[in-house]
Amino acid sequence: MSTFLIDTLRQIVGDAHVLTEGDLTAWEQDWRRRSRGKARAVVRPGSTAEVAAVVRACADAGAPIVPQGGNTGLAVGSIPDASGTQVVLSLTRMAAVRAVDADNLTMTVEAGCVLQNLQDVAEKAGLLFPLSLAAEGSCTIGGNLATNAGGTQVVRYGNTRDLCLGLEVVTPHGEVWEGLKGLRKDNTGYDLRDLFIGSEGTLGIITAATLKLYPRPAASLTAWAAVPSMEAAVRLLGMAHQHLGASLTGFEVMGRFALGLVARHMPQLRVPFIDQEDVPYGVLLENADSESEAHARARFEALLETAFEDGCVSDAVVAENLSQAQQLWHIRENIPLAQAEEGLNIKHDISVPISRIPAFVEYADALLAREVPGVRLVNFGHLGDGNLHYNVQAPAEGDAKAFLRDEEKRVNHLVYEAVARFGGSFSAEHGIGELKVDTLEAYQSPVALTMMRAIKQALDPRGLLNPGRVLARRP
Amino acid sequence: MSTFLIDTLRQIVGDAHVLTEGDLTAWEQDWRRRSRGKARAVVRPGSTAEVAAVVRACADAGAPIVPQGGNTGLAVGSIPDASGTQVVLSLTRMAAVRAVDADNLTMTVEAGCVLQNLQDVAEKAGLLFPLSLAAEGSCTIGGNLATNAGGTQVVRYGNTRDLCLGLEVVTPHGEVWEGLKGLRKDNTGYDLRDLFIGSEGTLGIITAATLKLYPRPAASLTAWAAVPSMEAAVRLLGMAHQHLGASLTGFEVMGRFALGLVARHMPQLRVPFIDQEDVPYGVLLENADSESEAHARARFEALLETAFEDGCVSDAVVAENLSQAQQLWHIRENIPLAQAEEGLNIKHDISVPISRIPAFVEYADALLAREVPGVRLVNFGHLGDGNLHYNVQAPAEGDAKAFLRDEEKRVNHLVYEAVARFGGSFSAEHGIGELKVDTLEAYQSPVALTMMRAIKQALDPRGLLNPGRVLARRP
Repeated sequence: MSTFLIDTLRQIVGDAHVLTEGDLTAWEQDWRRRSRGKARAVVRPGSTAEVAAVVRACADAGAPIVPQGGNTGLAVGSIPDASGTQVVLSLTRMAAVRAVDADNLTMTVEAGCVLQNLQDVAEKAGLLFPLSLAAEGSCTIGGNLATNAGGTQVVRYGNTRDLCLGLEVVTPHGEVWEGLKGLRKDNTGYDLRDLFIGSEGTLGIITAATLKLYPRPAASLTAWAAVPSMEAAVRLLGMAHQHLGASLTGFEVMGRFALGLVARHMPQLRVPFIDQEDVPYGVLLENADSESEAHARARFEALLETAFEDGCVSDAVVAENLSQAQQLWHIRENIPLAQAEEGLNIKHDISVPISRIPAFVEYADALLAREVPGVRLVNFGHLGDGNLHYNVQAPAEGDAKAFLRDEEKRVNHLVYEAVARFGGSFSAEHGIGELKVDTLEAYQSPVALTMMRAIKQALDPRGLLNPGRVLARRP
Repeated sequence: MSTFLIDTLRQIVGDAHVLTEGDLTAWEQDWRRRSRGKARAVVRPGSTAEVAAVVRACADAGAPIVPQGGNTGLAVGSIPDASGTQVVLSLTRMAAVRAVDADNLTMTVEAGCVLQNLQDVAEKAGLLFPLSLAAEGSCTIGGNLATNAGGTQVVRYGNTRDLCLGLEVVTPHGEVWEGLKGLRKDNTGYDLRDLFIGSEGTLGIITAATLKLYPRPAASLTAWAAVPSMEAAVRLLGMAHQHLGASLTGFEVMGRFALGLVARHMPQLRVPFIDQEDVPYGVLLENADSESEAHARARFEALLETAFEDGCVSDAVVAENLSQAQQLWHIRENIPLAQAEEGLNIKHDISVPISRIPAFVEYADALLAREVPGVRLVNFGHLGDGNLHYNVQAPAEGDAKAFLRDEEKRVNHLVYEAVARFGGSFSAEHGIGELKVDTLEAYQSPVALTMMRAIKQALDPRGLLNPGRVLARRP
């Protein structure tokens, strides 16, 4: 039967696009190299009709399917398990931009389009596709949609969910739902679009999407502020909302230890104010102005002046040009790399209501210092969205590998308990995948879990789509 | 058993809050007086626990439930049917504002809060809750969420869906889903929130919500532009996006015949440019500025200057003060009333991709003129969202009542066929209710309908919540 399925798949997509031999690492290993599976085959359909035919063939054979885009996810959601029975359905060949509609401020694109290419397509049309995140050079929009990716522009433009007007989806039965409407208002039944977005390939396979575009700002300015406390950073955020309105497109906070790692491992990046011992946090602000650079600069200066008077900012620089702005952003973007240079660490992607972030950080910092002596907290993230990458670096002395082996579970537990205490989420923008299935069981409401299982059962009764991701496998 | 249920309901909510006698018109008749049902009882719980207990009692008795807010819906979705077996569950007693969190830019409110009151609560906190629509003085936020209401600020702030971060919902089994997180990022499983939003009380009963707040703009200006064609209106919209960015908070188009009705029946409202015979459309623009009124005025003037040069605007006025601005908005808001003064008409709430609106209007105008001689088209709406209220007024001569009786179905068919041809939606912001169930069956994709039915079956297997709304009753 295995051979019959492979033969059928070859007939559907062509011999060259069914991979069963050779080095399949790119499809079988996850981005962070935490896990490696074994694919029964990697199938690379070139059209929606082929995706539907592949799904039907797999359903006939009872073969589970793992949909995959750029395979850059951080929660182990797009690689096969170790059984060798799962078919990886890679969407990277489906990379057409089907339409750009400037008057409607939309574009319709296939799931395999690389995010950065879509940013470029929008720019060429004189418009902006604002989704932006670290993996943008290799992640695909299908994966962004399947995981409801976040990134650095969420404070203004929302998550991927908020940028999508319509979807084309292949159902677990191999039917095609043609939901690609470019409509900003459409109240014709249940919101299937948002159900598929963020479902991580467990309810259907997204093959195309109609996405929102925005006018390009006339100018974009970046500032770096030294702030005396997390409370001050939250106060600065409120002021920035008030002064800049929707021109506030970025608001990132970075703790002193995180910035110190960048200064140590990438000295060429020149972290502002790092020599001032009394600066516990840096804040990166971005102001995208629809008018002019002069206007953006005047608005930024007015904001910072108010902030100085208030005391929530002790020092600040506004980038003089694009290259300076990029340099400031590079500092923020290189924190994960500096962390890796420093050694092993435990990553968290949590969110808490913005108003409670100062209390959460104080509580969690003290808790970890007490319970896990010597840990170093690499705290940075999208404060404008209440989203922190509250990472825990192994102690400077001792065996980091042993620390992770012995302590990761307990550290996660401490952090997630703290998050729950402050009404937060243990997975803000990275999703559940396989990595956090148990955490979802532990922290999601039982009533919600029951509804999620009922929906999975209703749409994918045989459980063939990405089994064991988001929801635990049925016993 | 009927008496037993009523007794149980009285025990749960108190005698005074179970209505079975007297004049129940307010709960049994729909807003547009198209339909009237008969309630087995009207139950008015005062808390989420009471709602859950009422749902369990009704489930035990097999009694269908019709959730109801302000009962201002336009699609007959919140009144009981004629059978006398359905319990109306009115949420108007649940009107507490549970919390306002200024630093998090959120408020948590109960479903029965009247929309206008929530606008006021936000204003008192120095913030903005931007949802705004004609029924705001009596509609409730629970109803707004259940129907994903739109309104006049969607071009900037989105529909009700886009303003909601979390929900508290009583399930058809009488359990409470506590999903009231005020988080801007939370990827922990399927998006139940958006599934309940817009499901019109058929999947669960929304009892509370955490809503987004925004900074209040420093100034808001309104302008009225005379435009030579619908193409010109679409071009003006693109320019307004480019010039004003997110400060563009309103963009309404009104056809000459619609404005003529206002001029005829409400001459005190003084419609701009109505005496200029060659002006087929008026456009109302709103510019909410985070800086100052002077800045807003300068930006508006720069936009209008560019538009004059382009030729997409032939004349324009900018309101000098709040009272003038309100007067301009009154003209727009009074079109439905002027229509009613003129006589009977057939209402549509359609959307089309903005880029295709000029071609759609040309096509549909010609089609109706040819197929239904004498009809007069009252075309106005939220062009910024691609949403038109493309209404059809009975011919000036003849019996309007007979016209509606004989022609409504055919007119609807012609309009919906035209909408489908241009990739649009037959229900943009009003929902399905009971009125458009057949239309949904006819125009929604069969694949989508199958998934919707599976979801309904999964979450409400006995079909006790608002049966026959959104989806047809099972045979």
